[in-house]
Amino acid sequence: MPNDTSYPTRQLCEFLAGLKLEDVPTPVVDRTKDLFLDWIASAIAGKDAPAIRRIQEFAAAMGPQTGDAEILVDRRRTSPYFAALINGASSHVVEQDDVHNGSVLHPAAVVFPAVVAAAQAEGKTGAEVLLASIAGYEAGIRIGEFMGRSHYRVFHTTGTVGTLAAAAAVAKLYGLDAEGINQALGSAGTQAAGLWEFLRDAADSKQLHTAKAAADGLQSAWLARAGFTGARQILEGAQGMAAGMSSDANPAALTDGLGTRWATAETSFKFFASCRHTHPAADALKAVMQREGLAAEQIASVTAHVHQGAIDVLGPVVNPVTIHQAKFSMGTVLGLVAVHTHAGLGEFEQHALQDPRIAAFCNKVTMALDDEINAAYPRQWIGRVTVTTTDGRSLEARVDVPKGDPGNTLSRPELEAKAVQLGAFRHGASEAEMRAIIARVWRLDTEANVNNWLPASR
Amino acid sequence: MPNDTSYPTRQLCEFLAGLKLEDVPTPVVDRTKDLFLDWIASAIAGKDAPAIRRIQEFAAAMGPQTGDAEILVDRRRTSPYFAALINGASSHVVEQDDVHNGSVLHPAAVVFPAVVAAAQAEGKTGAEVLLASIAGYEAGIRIGEFMGRSHYRVFHTTGTVGTLAAAAAVAKLYGLDAEGINQALGSAGTQAAGLWEFLRDAADSKQLHTAKAAADGLQSAWLARAGFTGARQILEGAQGMAAGMSSDANPAALTDGLGTRWATAETSFKFFASCRHTHPAADALKAVMQREGLAAEQIASVTAHVHQGAIDVLGPVVNPVTIHQAKFSMGTVLGLVAVHTHAGLGEFEQHALQDPRIAAFCNKVTMALDDEINAAYPRQWIGRVTVTTTDGRSLEARVDVPKGDPGNTLSRPELEAKAVQLGAFRHGASEAEMRAIIARVWRLDTEANVNNWLPASR
Repeated sequence: MPNDTSYPTRQLCEFLAGLKLEDVPTPVVDRTKDLFLDWIASAIAGKDAPAIRRIQEFAAAMGPQTGDAEILVDRRRTSPYFAALINGASSHVVEQDDVHNGSVLHPAAVVFPAVVAAAQAEGKTGAEVLLASIAGYEAGIRIGEFMGRSHYRVFHTTGTVGTLAAAAAVAKLYGLDAEGINQALGSAGTQAAGLWEFLRDAADSKQLHTAKAAADGLQSAWLARAGFTGARQILEGAQGMAAGMSSDANPAALTDGLGTRWATAETSFKFFASCRHTHPAADALKAVMQREGLAAEQIASVTAHVHQGAIDVLGPVVNPVTIHQAKFSMGTVLGLVAVHTHAGLGEFEQHALQDPRIAAFCNKVTMALDDEINAAYPRQWIGRVTVTTTDGRSLEARVDVPKGDPGNTLSRPELEAKAVQLGAFRHGASEAEMRAIIARVWRLDTEANVNNWLPASR
Repeated sequence: MPNDTSYPTRQLCEFLAGLKLEDVPTPVVDRTKDLFLDWIASAIAGKDAPAIRRIQEFAAAMGPQTGDAEILVDRRRTSPYFAALINGASSHVVEQDDVHNGSVLHPAAVVFPAVVAAAQAEGKTGAEVLLASIAGYEAGIRIGEFMGRSHYRVFHTTGTVGTLAAAAAVAKLYGLDAEGINQALGSAGTQAAGLWEFLRDAADSKQLHTAKAAADGLQSAWLARAGFTGARQILEGAQGMAAGMSSDANPAALTDGLGTRWATAETSFKFFASCRHTHPAADALKAVMQREGLAAEQIASVTAHVHQGAIDVLGPVVNPVTIHQAKFSMGTVLGLVAVHTHAGLGEFEQHALQDPRIAAFCNKVTMALDDEINAAYPRQWIGRVTVTTTDGRSLEARVDVPKGDPGNTLSRPELEAKAVQLGAFRHGASEAEMRAIIARVWRLDTEANVNNWLPASR
């Protein structure tokens, strides 16, 4: 066995093993509660989505019929593995969960389902859950940045890197030392998977990615605690993740600012219910329409000036045929903003596919790669649109910090309102139930346990 | 949704959907029985290996306590997902399971655990299991060949491609049509993972790879049957497996000789209990020692002339510290052959780490890339060694078809003897139990079901 512990993955593991909640600045802990609320509401909103139903059926067929861990969408219980699987899937399906810009990772959908399921089985406290979740965010974001932009061109980072984020979080929850966390990352990295190809078919894979990342991450930590070993240099090794799945990996990212830079607090909230790559342009379009007093029918064309990642992910979606796929259509999102002033959950449900004005608007929208925006990405997600009007004017708008990013974040009242809306979306939770969850999340650091978020199913 | 069905993955799926057992030549069906026997004996021999114990414990914690599917190493039952997981892990740990040269895939360890677990839950017949298994072999081998040598340099093909092989097999068992098989492959491909990095640490990942490939392949087929969708062009698409994990993918391989070339029957059996990359050189060393009447102590040095894949997989193993890692050490394998005349299960257990003559022999062995051998690989695995003797002679031997390959295969009596040895290895099954299994496998095409291979645990 190698005695060398100087490699970047190990340094990251040493940091995670030593991390204490009192070392984390209070604003970061508070922001983690914000992220937790945003997550649990998103997970509840996944109720009754067909893809989630299929995963629930799979869990019912293959898993135990009861257990310590809570399935948020059906208020039943199962083992932690299957709770992480279902809650991971449902967290991501309405596209309202958080995103970290620099890593292009959705940490909530993979970290919280794994941590909460494991914590419910082990009787861990709210403070322990917060600490483990911060460990998962700090690790996952750095690993996502390490894997680089080349990785994201083909791989859904939340699926691949998400497995390691979940593993790091649960390993921390279990109290593993640096060696144990390293072993957990080894098993997680060798299971890390998730390809963008599903976008062309409007297929259900995105939900499978978060489901498996959360569940397999939990499994990796569980196995590491039991003594099952994995590759130590799973990230930077000659036959590790970067060697296989990246051409621009940056090992320095793995240890960037450990203990001083709190990547958790850099995480953005989604304001629109669509792929984050559509948000900067949607903000810019909204700005130009408000500034100029434009109506949708006065717009002849829109050019959204974007980074390459937007073209990679949104480009394959030409004629969206499902609501989920429409969330990856730049034309649909801009059409909803132009015609209905917002691209929220309700607008997608009611108008994205049904309103002929949206399809017509889609044909007016093109994406163009912009060198400046592309160079700033992924650290900064700049939105810029050029609009031509039916009377021949050419208008521009630019938004440097899209709504939901740190610096233009959602306030706690906005987060609470969003959470109540998410609960109501599919009747996943009543307003009273969501208000109880909200109150409990704001005091999560003093909660004795994280069990029983919703009353059990009759 | 694309109406185009002309892409290679779809053509493969059309073939699999239409395949009938009566279309398969009898020698291929008979060879599939050979492969089945070799698999079930390997799976039983994985009993009590620490890595397998950990996966059993995980299944006990997370899965149901009983079910329709048989866990071969502990004679208990669980759901098909967890049976596939455990049997997949245990199939590969003693390194005695089969290998297909051209794809560098170990099909048995991923296909049979998934098919048998699914079949036990669905009451499928032996003939249905044979047909589904052939579908899995035919698909998996072609997909492995499609992914190319660049994939295998970093990825453990049995983990990645194995997921799709298992999915194809179970989808066929479920009677899915071409569209359904395609959906199953889509979900399997987006979960496909497995990196070689674990070799440096002698870590347990190889068992996790086959476990997850079998279980996730089964899951992908189960979900496809339930209507959960995946990417259709998961292999050749712009953001599919080849785009992410290969630089020399060959789409023509996916449809190569469908219905005329029976890739299943090209599969090799392992004679030595080590990584297949060591076998050609071991055969050649054995040949030269027999021909020249050499004893181990007369050998001053051995150069094994190998293909690049051998260097990639065996190169990282310098000082093996576990028996499993020793199976990936060219020096250890050649040492066992030289000192103990064989590198079987017993030799590894008794001598690989304990006998100082083996460690001494290791220092005499080097690998050298050979252009001719490398060019013939992976279609042909040629063994060539140059031996220098302590009295100054330089001797050569070459073996064009290593023991176990088609053309130099194991006979049914040899397979039966190997199966009985594997059963006895960890007292996984008595000779009488293995003889009963052998008799049942030879009549598998007329068996009403594939349940109850071993008496249930008391």
